[in-house]
Amino acid sequence: MAGKAKPYDPGIEEMVKGILAGDRRMLSRAITLVESTMPDHEAKAHAVLDRCLGMKRESIRIGITGSPGAGKSSFIEVLGEKIIAEGHQLAVLAIDPSSSRSKGSILGDKARMEKLAGSRNAFIRPTASSGHLGGTSPRTHETIVLCEAAGFNVVIVETVGVGQSEITIDTMVDFIVLLMLPGSGDELQGIKRGIMEIADAIAVTKTDGEQAALAGISRADFEAALHMLPRKHPFHERKVFLTSALAGTGIIEVWHEIRDTLSSMRESGMLPSRRRLQLSTLYHEVLENMLKARFFSDPAVQAARAAIEQQVLSETLTPYSGAKELLGAFLRQP
Amino acid sequence: MAGKAKPYDPGIEEMVKGILAGDRRMLSRAITLVESTMPDHEAKAHAVLDRCLGMKRESIRIGITGSPGAGKSSFIEVLGEKIIAEGHQLAVLAIDPSSSRSKGSILGDKARMEKLAGSRNAFIRPTASSGHLGGTSPRTHETIVLCEAAGFNVVIVETVGVGQSEITIDTMVDFIVLLMLPGSGDELQGIKRGIMEIADAIAVTKTDGEQAALAGISRADFEAALHMLPRKHPFHERKVFLTSALAGTGIIEVWHEIRDTLSSMRESGMLPSRRRLQLSTLYHEVLENMLKARFFSDPAVQAARAAIEQQVLSETLTPYSGAKELLGAFLRQP
Repeated sequence: MAGKAKPYDPGIEEMVKGILAGDRRMLSRAITLVESTMPDHEAKAHAVLDRCLGMKRESIRIGITGSPGAGKSSFIEVLGEKIIAEGHQLAVLAIDPSSSRSKGSILGDKARMEKLAGSRNAFIRPTASSGHLGGTSPRTHETIVLCEAAGFNVVIVETVGVGQSEITIDTMVDFIVLLMLPGSGDELQGIKRGIMEIADAIAVTKTDGEQAALAGISRADFEAALHMLPRKHPFHERKVFLTSALAGTGIIEVWHEIRDTLSSMRESGMLPSRRRLQLSTLYHEVLENMLKARFFSDPAVQAARAAIEQQVLSETLTPYSGAKELLGAFLRQP
Repeated sequence: MAGKAKPYDPGIEEMVKGILAGDRRMLSRAITLVESTMPDHEAKAHAVLDRCLGMKRESIRIGITGSPGAGKSSFIEVLGEKIIAEGHQLAVLAIDPSSSRSKGSILGDKARMEKLAGSRNAFIRPTASSGHLGGTSPRTHETIVLCEAAGFNVVIVETVGVGQSEITIDTMVDFIVLLMLPGSGDELQGIKRGIMEIADAIAVTKTDGEQAALAGISRADFEAALHMLPRKHPFHERKVFLTSALAGTGIIEVWHEIRDTLSSMRESGMLPSRRRLQLSTLYHEVLENMLKARFFSDPAVQAARAAIEQQVLSETLTPYSGAKELLGAFLRQP
């Protein structure tokens, strides 16, 4: 009966104190708590979050998105160095698509962003991407809040540019950079329009060596593509940058673009109002998802669901009647 | 106490019999019933619909969309004549954006599609657009079902190309024609991409008189724009047509494109599988909207809503915590 030693489990006060003092291990613990789906973890996470909410500093939140292989890690590694060099404290919420477990992720990411991981002004938090589409989840917002409470004033969120996640990331960051490989305009045809529409700038990556010749063509193609889309912000013209993480070119220009755009948004009062709008959008998105999850996991709904859907698909029940019937099953319960 | 004469109110059997016999007044009554939001009307409407569901003929469902002023009515008038000339029975579910009341709509639309309204092979049903975004609603599908039961084998649904409605119309029709005025490529910048993405063909309208010169440029611009988008169906290349309702040109070509595309979709078995997919999408869309409507009209939710949202926006509660709290208010009820 000689039990295992009880694992160290700091209380709410201790955790909050640690986070506010910039203790990275405590920050990591809090993020794990926020990401947990266990009910008692959830309650504690919310208590910690609510204490941290008032403590956030003025910050810059950057989204970096692009297909797998677009060079996100290398780009962030170089971008991160430039940011730190200006005296900022940088947190990177990085996706590791190679692993579905946290442990694998941590090792993978440390290898991916070696220099940044070694800096005392950077905090890299890998997230396994298997759990959520595109690697972001409604909880990513909470993680950003914790990082800001811990003193990080620049937060980079890395996402893979697929599906619904771009729309979500747009409610969480101030500026989104879309990374694209050099290539002909043909590849644009396959791009999900959602990604192009939320981008505030495009960085063409790996424009070195043999790819250098292609890069100029790509820039023109991407500029034409951006021209086809309605502007994201009325005052802001989206630019295309040619970058190389290997040669170290073009990336400081991207950082200046981000910094300058946000500082003029801040001066004009647009940033706070945009953040309120983002919070509202995120809140409604989370609410809708929770409501649907609760509905579809309901026993009465699960019992009735297949039969009703079958009737709708075989055209013995209209979609409207079917929906009414299933909603009735949900509401009739005690 | 000499009461008013009780209005004529046919029973379910009489109504179904009338619809199946092609009685237009009975069809109109049934559509009014389907569009009604009164609970006893709703029950009767579903009984009629469920009887009609098995009686549908093989049909072609066409969506015509475009901004106000793009020439939808004139286009449909000419297109409708071509369709009727081939021996088809045509139903047109037309939006009248000029009126928010049915009576005004009917007069307005009769004037708009004069020739078609006079034909014994066409049935025009105007819908006031004020009630629903873009003039379609989940009930539009039910109205199509009723028209098909009444023997109409071609159904045209007119929508104004704004907002969410295009996505919904894509779950209801087999082929969508987007109408665009001739003009420079600049106007493309303002177009909602959603509309372009669901179009199966583009018809440039009013390419007569002074506009004729612009039309050629427009065609090239629209073809380039379509080229930028991923294909809607892998086998089908979207075409751009130059049309004039005034000169009567180009519109028969649009009809042949619709007819031929659908006949090859039917032969390959794609049409039935696509319709099943549409039914499934429509069902889930209606279900989600009903669930949300029920949630937000709930007294406990309405009581708690403003305070929680205020806390989220003032950053004293995270979006996640706020959503959890409001969902709790909904579920805790008896």
